This record gives sequence, structure tokens and C-alpha cells, in this order.
Amino acid sequence: MIYFDHNATTPVLPEVFEAMRPYFCDEWGNPSSAYRFGSKLKTIVGMARGRVANLIGALPEEILFTSCATESNNAAIQSVLKSNPTKRHIITSAVEHSSVLNHCQALEKEGYRVTYLPVDRDGLLNIIDLENALNDQTAVVSLMWANNETGVLFPVEKIAEVCQSKGVPFHCDAVQAVGKVPIDVTRIHVDYLTISAHKIFGPKGVGALFIRRSVLFSPMLLGGHQENERRGGTENVPLLVGFGRAADLVRQEFSERVEKCLVSRDYLEKTILAHIPNTSINGCRDSRISTTSNIHFSGIDSDALVTFLDSRGICVSSGSACISNAIAPSHVILAMTGSIGKAKQSIRFSIAHATTHSEIDSVVKELQHAYQQLK
Amino acid sequence: MIYFDHNATTPVLPEVFEAMRPYFCDEWGNPSSAYRFGSKLKTIVGMARGRVANLIGALPEEILFTSCATESNNAAIQSVLKSNPTKRHIITSAVEHSSVLNHCQALEKEGYRVTYLPVDRDGLLNIIDLENALNDQTAVVSLMWANNETGVLFPVEKIAEVCQSKGVPFHCDAVQAVGKVPIDVTRIHVDYLTISAHKIFGPKGVGALFIRRSVLFSPMLLGGHQENERRGGTENVPLLVGFGRAADLVRQEFSERVEKCLVSRDYLEKTILAHIPNTSINGCRDSRISTTSNIHFSGIDSDALVTFLDSRGICVSSGSACISNAIAPSHVILAMTGSIGKAKQSIRFSIAHATTHSEIDSVVKELQHAYQQLK
Repeated sequence: MIYFDHNATTPVLPEVFEAMRPYFCDEWGNPSSAYRFGSKLKTIVGMARGRVANLIGALPEEILFTSCATESNNAAIQSVLKSNPTKRHIITSAVEHSSVLNHCQALEKEGYRVTYLPVDRDGLLNIIDLENALNDQTAVVSLMWANNETGVLFPVEKIAEVCQSKGVPFHCDAVQAVGKVPIDVTRIHVDYLTISAHKIFGPKGVGALFIRRSVLFSPMLLGGHQENERRGGTENVPLLVGFGRAADLVRQEFSERVEKCLVSRDYLEKTILAHIPNTSINGCRDSRISTTSNIHFSGIDSDALVTFLDSRGICVSSGSACISNAIAPSHVILAMTGSIGKAKQSIRFSIAHATTHSEIDSVVKELQHAYQQLK
Repeated sequence: MIYFDHNATTPVLPEVFEAMRPYFCDEWGNPSSAYRFGSKLKTIVGMARGRVANLIGALPEEILFTSCATESNNAAIQSVLKSNPTKRHIITSAVEHSSVLNHCQALEKEGYRVTYLPVDRDGLLNIIDLENALNDQTAVVSLMWANNETGVLFPVEKIAEVCQSKGVPFHCDAVQAVGKVPIDVTRIHVDYLTISAHKIFGPKGVGALFIRRSVLFSPMLLGGHQENERRGGTENVPLLVGFGRAADLVRQEFSERVEKCLVSRDYLEKTILAHIPNTSINGCRDSRISTTSNIHFSGIDSDALVTFLDSRGICVSSGSACISNAIAPSHVILAMTGSIGKAKQSIRFSIAHATTHSEIDSVVKELQHAYQQLK
């Protein structure tokens, strides 16, 4: 199998699994217990929290563990809205993940007004559009750091400056940016920032929300005193430990992983463009994460191409896994190009540091076969 | 170590861990992907769903996987309130878990009226109180099946009948009842029912909410199409598999486990009452789950007793782990007896099928030492 869909999910690294293992059947106490078999696990959870915090320059107490990035994204926006019940305007973009877009659409039904900022043909956001959209009624700005389908980066530093100058909370979905671009919350003034473990070789079922110390937080899950009164529910000790280990690894190996991905991605793109007719790259070439190539195969149906490659043991996708059950064209490519055709003829390749040139050569060979068959 | 706190959490059984293991580092795809490496896991998740459904007589499509029982409890109540925005009255009891009580208290601040039904000295609920509390404004009744601190059972069958006859949705927190009393949702008309994996020898970080097929559900986590459009977020495949395996085991071994627990619990209670002066059992002796004994040690501070036993390698608790960080007396014993003294001098022993008479003898011996030291 050749797996070029790391933006959908990543394997749990063996080191991460080994770190988690003792906490299933051996050290399985409840951290909130009064006796040591349970309470000593508070320290373990605290270490995991510190490791995740380190990855983005946060303080441990600024990290709220959640069950996934969807929960983090939902919780951040809901918290801001609860804290400012009179403000009824939300700003986001047309190319966000479904956990922001579908939440915003539901909020529109509750009477909120939502501005979906457009992107240009390259997938870039114009900061002037954000400035024009902001007003006295704006409760929150929620914009992603790196797009999950194209890898295109939003100008997060400028967005944060604009939001801070207007006193509007800024939530950033950084799920696809973490481990791929440097993130330092002491340098960039986001108020809330979402991270997921299973996109950085950690386990599924655990995410985090950075909540700046100066910011109020209104919990989404109400129950026990866990997570410093900010999320009820028994701590998922093994998965938190796994998240911490994955965060440590991605931080330690950051430069090396990024460099390897850059070389592989450039080779992948160069080879595809050279060998498959009528192909082009979707998204700004200069402002992208190192792991993601979204390529337009003109005249070739992307679902047919995904199926063809699957039959040859190659995993790629025609959009986000979170919406790939739907047959709709990619909302991201549609927002960029306005072309349903292009949105239905584009494929996302998302690689990792372990990706090899030989894997890329195999993929391009199968793409050539696919082109002959599907054109 | 002797662990008599299974109501706080249970170990992951080796069979459960082995069932989960392949889904971390080998079969780690995203079930929502279009290619087989991911999509074949939909079948695996479906099998886990069927196993959890089987445990309570539900249909697989009536099981929503969540991240924990707290999420299930919160989601059930929020769903009902969203579906009936004009009804502003909630009925629950004074002895519910914090994930119901704290949620209800937060809803009171939003303008909801909440009736907290009392319990008698035995921890029992009077069905007449429920009937009297129900009115045209009642949006939902949320009552637990078995109490987490005393093990006392509520008359769920009668509660369900009353609620159904009045057309009021009934949510039941069955976390501590599952695997300990027979639960069959085809026989008892609950609309929503909460289950947790880590109380039945499955992993932490995964729960379920039974949602009767005839009932509408308004999702709490908005995102992708996962969980039949009812909960966004990438499926936590390994933990769902573990939950399914744990559910299968507890179903298969139900009678045997319950019988063993009954014998152990009766021996535990008989021995404590015989050897430790001024002890009595909190909660109705005839209507309790087989695993839980809540015992009043008159004149002995429960926190001191927990600490003493901890120093001898014995794990018990003075209340729910979800509130044991707080120094407050048990709200359950307080609601039953009205006595702060009794609420601060009671200990929960929660055993399991693997508990032995020799463990019980050791605990009673240490209780005797504790009595000498702490009386």
C-alpha cells in the first residue's frame, strides 16, 4: 500500500503506542481518585499537557484536552458566543473544515449572521476583506491556519493583529498546520487554537484547544472537575499520553520532517506535471504546507481516479474525509475557482516524512495508466 | 493492591486490549475515506456498534458513539431542549451524577426551571413525586438507573411508563447499571440511555448514547457526516472496537459476574458489620446493584479512612471520583439522610467479579486497624 492521504489521518507511531500501552491494563486508575493508584496519574496527564503545550509555545494551563478537533472547534466558538451573548456576528471563510462550516450554518439558523470570507484563485485570503467584515457586532473570527485540502496558508499573523486591534477574539483551526509550520502562540496572538493528535502520528479520539490565559472559557461538556473545571469526563489517560508523545516527536523532528516532505512534494508535483497531460496545481505555490499537493487532472473525474488508484493499492482523496461520503464537489476548490468541473477533477495528495521517491514513482506510473483509461 | 473502587473506573481487560491493538499501528485508516484501507473500517465500527447495541437490546442504528458518559448525558438533555424550545422545565433527582446535576444547574442560569426530586433515607425515589412534578412545561426527565455512590436502583420501569403516558422524553443515565442488572430497551421505554465503556472493563474515552429510533436527535458536535450525521469527528476506531469487545464479554458473562459479585458483596458487608463497631449500610438493601456497598462508619472521617486504607494499598472512595477533588460531603448521602456527619463518614466499596474473599478479609483487617486509630 502507498498512503498519500496523511491529511485524513496518520498511523500511530510505534513509539507513541509504546508510550500509551501501560495505561490500558496496568496503570488504569482514575486520576481524580483520592488514592495514589489513581491520583498519581494526574502527574502523567500533566506531563502530556506540558508536551502538547511545548509544541505551540503555550503554557500547560492553556491546553484543554478534548475528544477531537471537531469538539475543539465547536467548543471555542460556543464559548465566545456564550461569553458575549449580545454579539451576533461571526466571521469565517468559505474554505474551512466542516466542523467550523456546519457549526456556523447551524448558528445561522439560530439567528446569528455569518460572513464567509472568500478566497482568491490561489486559495489566499485578502486581509482587507477581513477588515471590511469586522464590525461592532462581531463576536468571533474563526479562520484556519492551513487548508486541509490544498495546504494553502492563511496570513495568520496579520489576521491575529487585525483581530487584536479590534478587540475581537480569534479562533484558529491549526489542525493541518501543526508540525508543518512553526507555531508559537507567544509570537502570534490567537485566542483559541485547535490541534488534533491523529494528524501528527498520535491516536484518534483526542484533541486539544489552546485557550490563552487571559481569555474566559465557558465549558461545553458540563460534569466533574476534570480539566481544571473546563471539561467534565474521566481523563482518557492512555490517549493523552500518546498525544504528548506524538507532540514531543513532531517537535523534536520538526525541521527534518518538513525538509523531507518539501523534497518529496516538489518531486511529486514536478513528476506529475511532467508526465500527466493537462494537470495543474491548485493553490498558491509559495504559501503552502510541505505535505499537501492538490492537483487538477483536467477531464478526469476525481472519484473515478481515487477508485482506480485504490485498485492499485494507492490511497489518495478527492477532498476531506469528513465530507467524502458526500458526492458533492470540493467546496474548497469551488470557492477558489468557481468551477464545478475543476472541483470534481482534483485530487489531494498528502504525504509524510516517510514518503519515498520510489513510492512517488509508483504513484505517477499508475496515474499514467489511469490517464489512459479515464481520459 | 486491593482495588474496591470499580465504580470510579475499571481496568481494560487483556482481551479488550488485544481487540483494540491492531487498530492503532496497523489498521489505522480513516473510516470515512473512499479507499478500502479506510472504508473497510466502517464494517469494524459497525460490528462494535452492534455489540454495544446487543448489550441493551437496542438496534445498531440506535447507538451513538460519544467520547464519554458525560458527553452522552449532556447531549441527550441538550437534544431534547433544542427539539422543544418552548418547554422550559426539567425533572431530575438530587442524587444524579455531576454530569447531569452540573448541567442542570447551568441550565437554571439560562432560565430553565429544574425540579430535583428527593430520595428517601434508603435512597429510593417515590414515583408519586415524579407524577406530581410533571407538567405541560416539562421538556425532559433525566433519572439514573443505579446510583454511583450507593448502588441503589431507581424504579426505571415505572418511571418510563409514567413518562411515556405523559408524552415526556425520558433520559436514563445507566452507566452504573449496565452489566449489573438486565437492561432491555425493548422492554423498558427509555428514550435516551447513557453507557460508558470504562465502567465495564473497556477503555476510557468512549461512551454511547442509546437514542430510540422513533426519537429525534439534535447533534451536539457539528462537523462531518460521521455517526449517521449525529456526531462530527473522525471515528475513534480502536476504542470503539474495545468498547464492543467489553460489551460482548459483559453480556456473555453477565449471570456469572453478577452472582460472584453478590456473594462477595454480602460477605464484605456481613464481615464489616460484624467486626467494625458502629457501622451501617447506606441505601436500600433489597434494591441495589451487586457491586456496590456504601457503608457509614460512625465517628470516623471518610477522607481520613480513604487515606489510611490507601497507605495499606487499598483503593476505596468517599464519593464519586468526578467530585472527589472537592472536599464537600457526598451529595448523595446528604440527600438521603440530611446529615452532613453521615455524608462525611461514609465509604463506597465497589467490587468486581474478580474480587476474592481473601481480599475482603484483608480490607476488613485494615478497617479494624483504621478504627482503632481514627475512632
